[in-house]
Amino acid sequence: MICIKFYDGFLKDYPSGITPIEIALDMNEKKAREVLSASINGHQVELSTPITKINIQIVFYSWENTLGKKAFWHSSIHLLGQTLLQIHPQAKLTIGNPIENGFYYDVDLVDGPQQNFSSNLEERMLENARKNSIFELYSIYKAKSLDYYKENLYKIDIIKNLQEGDTTFCSNDDFVDLCRGTHIFSSGKIKYVKILNSSGVYWHSDEKNQQLTRVYGISFPNEKHMNEYLLKFEEAKKRDHRKLGKELDLFNFSDNVGAGLPLWKTKGTVLRRSLEDFLMRAQKKYGYEMVVTPHIGNKKLYKISGHIDKYENDSFLTRFSHHFGEEILLKSMNCPHHCELFKSQSWSYRDLPKRFAEFGNVYRYEQSGELHGLTRTRGFTQDDAHIFCTTDQLVDEFHRVIDLVLYILKSLGFEQYTIQISLRDLKIMNKYIGKEQNWKKAEEDIIEAVCNKNLPTKIIHGEAAFYGPKLDFLIQDSLKRNWQLGTIQIDYSLPERFDLQYQGPDNLLYRPVIIHRAPFGSLERFIALLIEHTGGNFPFWLSPIQVILIPISEKYIFYAEKILHLLYKYGIRSNIDLRSEKTGKKIRDAEINKIPFMAIVGEKEMYDGTISIRAHTIGNMGKFTFEAFLELLFNEA
Amino acid sequence: MICIKFYDGFLKDYPSGITPIEIALDMNEKKAREVLSASINGHQVELSTPITKINIQIVFYSWENTLGKKAFWHSSIHLLGQTLLQIHPQAKLTIGNPIENGFYYDVDLVDGPQQNFSSNLEERMLENARKNSIFELYSIYKAKSLDYYKENLYKIDIIKNLQEGDTTFCSNDDFVDLCRGTHIFSSGKIKYVKILNSSGVYWHSDEKNQQLTRVYGISFPNEKHMNEYLLKFEEAKKRDHRKLGKELDLFNFSDNVGAGLPLWKTKGTVLRRSLEDFLMRAQKKYGYEMVVTPHIGNKKLYKISGHIDKYENDSFLTRFSHHFGEEILLKSMNCPHHCELFKSQSWSYRDLPKRFAEFGNVYRYEQSGELHGLTRTRGFTQDDAHIFCTTDQLVDEFHRVIDLVLYILKSLGFEQYTIQISLRDLKIMNKYIGKEQNWKKAEEDIIEAVCNKNLPTKIIHGEAAFYGPKLDFLIQDSLKRNWQLGTIQIDYSLPERFDLQYQGPDNLLYRPVIIHRAPFGSLERFIALLIEHTGGNFPFWLSPIQVILIPISEKYIFYAEKILHLLYKYGIRSNIDLRSEKTGKKIRDAEINKIPFMAIVGEKEMYDGTISIRAHTIGNMGKFTFEAFLELLFNEA
Repeated sequence: MICIKFYDGFLKDYPSGITPIEIALDMNEKKAREVLSASINGHQVELSTPITKINIQIVFYSWENTLGKKAFWHSSIHLLGQTLLQIHPQAKLTIGNPIENGFYYDVDLVDGPQQNFSSNLEERMLENARKNSIFELYSIYKAKSLDYYKENLYKIDIIKNLQEGDTTFCSNDDFVDLCRGTHIFSSGKIKYVKILNSSGVYWHSDEKNQQLTRVYGISFPNEKHMNEYLLKFEEAKKRDHRKLGKELDLFNFSDNVGAGLPLWKTKGTVLRRSLEDFLMRAQKKYGYEMVVTPHIGNKKLYKISGHIDKYENDSFLTRFSHHFGEEILLKSMNCPHHCELFKSQSWSYRDLPKRFAEFGNVYRYEQSGELHGLTRTRGFTQDDAHIFCTTDQLVDEFHRVIDLVLYILKSLGFEQYTIQISLRDLKIMNKYIGKEQNWKKAEEDIIEAVCNKNLPTKIIHGEAAFYGPKLDFLIQDSLKRNWQLGTIQIDYSLPERFDLQYQGPDNLLYRPVIIHRAPFGSLERFIALLIEHTGGNFPFWLSPIQVILIPISEKYIFYAEKILHLLYKYGIRSNIDLRSEKTGKKIRDAEINKIPFMAIVGEKEMYDGTISIRAHTIGNMGKFTFEAFLELLFNEA
Repeated sequence: MICIKFYDGFLKDYPSGITPIEIALDMNEKKAREVLSASINGHQVELSTPITKINIQIVFYSWENTLGKKAFWHSSIHLLGQTLLQIHPQAKLTIGNPIENGFYYDVDLVDGPQQNFSSNLEERMLENARKNSIFELYSIYKAKSLDYYKENLYKIDIIKNLQEGDTTFCSNDDFVDLCRGTHIFSSGKIKYVKILNSSGVYWHSDEKNQQLTRVYGISFPNEKHMNEYLLKFEEAKKRDHRKLGKELDLFNFSDNVGAGLPLWKTKGTVLRRSLEDFLMRAQKKYGYEMVVTPHIGNKKLYKISGHIDKYENDSFLTRFSHHFGEEILLKSMNCPHHCELFKSQSWSYRDLPKRFAEFGNVYRYEQSGELHGLTRTRGFTQDDAHIFCTTDQLVDEFHRVIDLVLYILKSLGFEQYTIQISLRDLKIMNKYIGKEQNWKKAEEDIIEAVCNKNLPTKIIHGEAAFYGPKLDFLIQDSLKRNWQLGTIQIDYSLPERFDLQYQGPDNLLYRPVIIHRAPFGSLERFIALLIEHTGGNFPFWLSPIQVILIPISEKYIFYAEKILHLLYKYGIRSNIDLRSEKTGKKIRDAEINKIPFMAIVGEKEMYDGTISIRAHTIGNMGKFTFEAFLELLFNEA
């Protein structure tokens, strides 16, 4: 007999060799129908794997759990692979993975990449699902698996890199695939399937390799979950920042300038500047000082910082043309520059903490297939700052940084977030630079600072930066999607490498510690989030145009200009719609442009010195004197 | 007989073969003593050259004329060369040139570069000068001149590149030098000599070549002129922006970041931002719209613009590291990016002019020997804008740009300037791209716009940009030195190359024209000028710290903090001097830091709720209530 401990602490004995699905059925037959996956002693397992260990703890996962969904979508990948081969018998399957919403399979269709898949694929996948075949995972010898795939070079490529014993296969129905697991019990649970889209990708993301077709899909256990998802998907499509960015005239990309390099148009620049101004004011209150550093730096700077050894292949490596011997790198982070600024003079303990802030434009190489609007670019603006403080000041400063980030998020209407603390992976310690004692203190300090705040937190091992532990903010947007944004990192390493010093009260020289922090992370990415979160309906103070004046005919342009001048005086960003269009059309266009207020002026308004106001999405608000309208605006701002 | 026409229109006949110096003596013996050089029909000549043409116009130059000084300093170069060879017989002379203030000679001293030259050099130069030898220019065959210099490879290098007939020599006393002229009549006029300094330079500015010593000197015809210069020189040294930039904690350079790449410290950043804000407000009034573009661009962008053919060797050429095939350039100008922005949507004639402005950081390669503080850097910020307008709007827009530049200069206290119009060199027309008719119209338009303004102007042929004529502002600083700053350029070429279009009232597509303009040119260079012009005593609104609070003991810190908070509320940049130093020392330090106002608080002030004010360079201004002080500040701003 073996003893099983359940999530709620309940204990029960079972015969050795019982499977998780049998335990679930034994506990609650009705509930068992919702079970999609399980973990034993913290490791996710197959539902059909016999249990032989004596004392174990079991946890079951349903659709409500990320791991439940993952097993569901992982199993759907097998259906997709099976069906693709039924339709394209010559195709070579490569790798499939579950993702945040659904799954994909990369397949070499032999006769070139394919763009559209008919609903036939969905129907035939569901036919296969309805056979309700059990997913069975089993291990075979590496040599045998190589033989099995002798006509699929992709799978051979994968298997060659596996250890003997790691070559596991999964079979269901008449289909077998190289697979690590984990799956749901049987295919019958998969009731709804949507093939979303497909795109061309390269094997191993290398443009020199064969181009494959990545087929994206999503599946559901019932219609309700599918409809919920599809609704959110439609809403997300409407709010796509690339689409709205174009419609609202915020930014643009140009092939000639280069992929992943946004050009900010007038309205987008106003939005950026407003955000920067807001951040500057907030940071000033918290004692930050702005600095400006170049966008390039000598290679020796990055040798000192250690970045060159870690990231040489990821950055843009810049060289002087022709006859110049110097090697110059395009800046991919601001910290080395800020360290040089700190080093440019001597400091006393009384001067610390020193907080250098910069809207630093940095450049990083991203594969063209990974570029995505403003969320993944090759050039972006960090709302960066480096705090140089004494070790005694560290926890306090960390508190202040968290306070500042929370203040910023709240001011921008983000109430839902999780704090993620990233520590070292204790199994691969050679990944990290710096002294053990410093790492330990830094990890303890971060945990202490966050615990004191009593905020929703999760700790993840192995996600620390190579020079120190970090803290990330995961923000939930209005569609309940998570965005990883700002980060706070403790660094004992750069102060060593740059030999940074300050004079203590005893006149001896000490090493400061650095906190790296960027609440938005990337201004570009944050603006993408803001667009999708608000659907382009920015808060009044961020709207590129806050008021549009609509004279109902040419006769009232002069009066509109008078109002415009007044609004301009009060710093309200306004325009007049001078086009010879009908008023209805002008109002519709203002709605499309999501301008917060329309001020309509005609005979009546000019006569009694008023303006008729329409608010975006709200509609007619009646006649206002200029002063009353101004009050309305200042209440918005 | 030949007929000579004088500057004032007076005509007189002379025998053929008469020399300019003889004519000068004939006209006015006393005045002739001041004659340093002359030009015949617009070409500067030797004073000892016999005149044989029949109808000529003659102009004489004295110390008051640039060309007079140039001949004087050119002649002094011969004295310097002669004397250097007397002291270092093994030395090889290379090239010497007159400069704005004085002259230099580059010499290979054989036993390596030398830093300091004793006053012995000055004394022996004057000894040679007192021999009052006549400077005589004569032509010899190229072969003979190569033979003469058979032991001086530098001169051989120069001669090899000369045409037969261009190998002229100048002799005076026992010294002979390869020389193009022009000289004063005889060496006796050179009464005072100062050897200023020396530096290491490379032959042909190429670091692979031999290092030479560049000896800088200056000479004068009398003590008065020397003393005037030395006074100005001392004042300029005190105001050197590199020295003041360090003392006032504005910016810094770092070897690790790279030469010519300024890092802006906190106070310098405040100064920069204040200037940017001022410019933004001014430009907004004139209808400009801010945009933001990346600091890099694909090589194909610069192929379209034509920059790559012109400037490939001058820019930083950037490549993706390793496995990426794309070629990316660091931006050395903003115009191609702005053209792409313009091209990103369609425009009607009603939308024009469109004025895109950006504080664009650009990077250009400058030889390390040419770098100089903020005036010559490898990275700088252009206060750039590009105006896209119709040809009909061109002259009007040009007017508006001139108005804006004049407004900006006046606001910053620069009242003395010259406008320089740069047109094509009609002799080397292949230097320029674009159609003849466009060039002609652009040159006419610039001249028309400037003439209408009735401003101090000079026209220079051969200084146009390769794509169009330009207009530069030469600003005179408080030491009466000229700085070339902002530039306005008309460009018909880029609209062609980028195929820019707008729809006319007839619905046909037309080509816009571009005005490039940057009032400061480089923000960095402008700040250098501002520092040297003001000696670091910035106008109140630009001062990084506007008020420093000085509590006379610890007891009054609380009261000082209350005042600080109030000042902060009104946007006044203030600090408290919290050091445990004596009040006298704090005041002296505030004076050194050129902080406009010191607010001293002690027992009396705290008791009656006032502050004692000292103004920088002025001194004690008495006790003020906070409100009265605020009024004083707002009058300053």
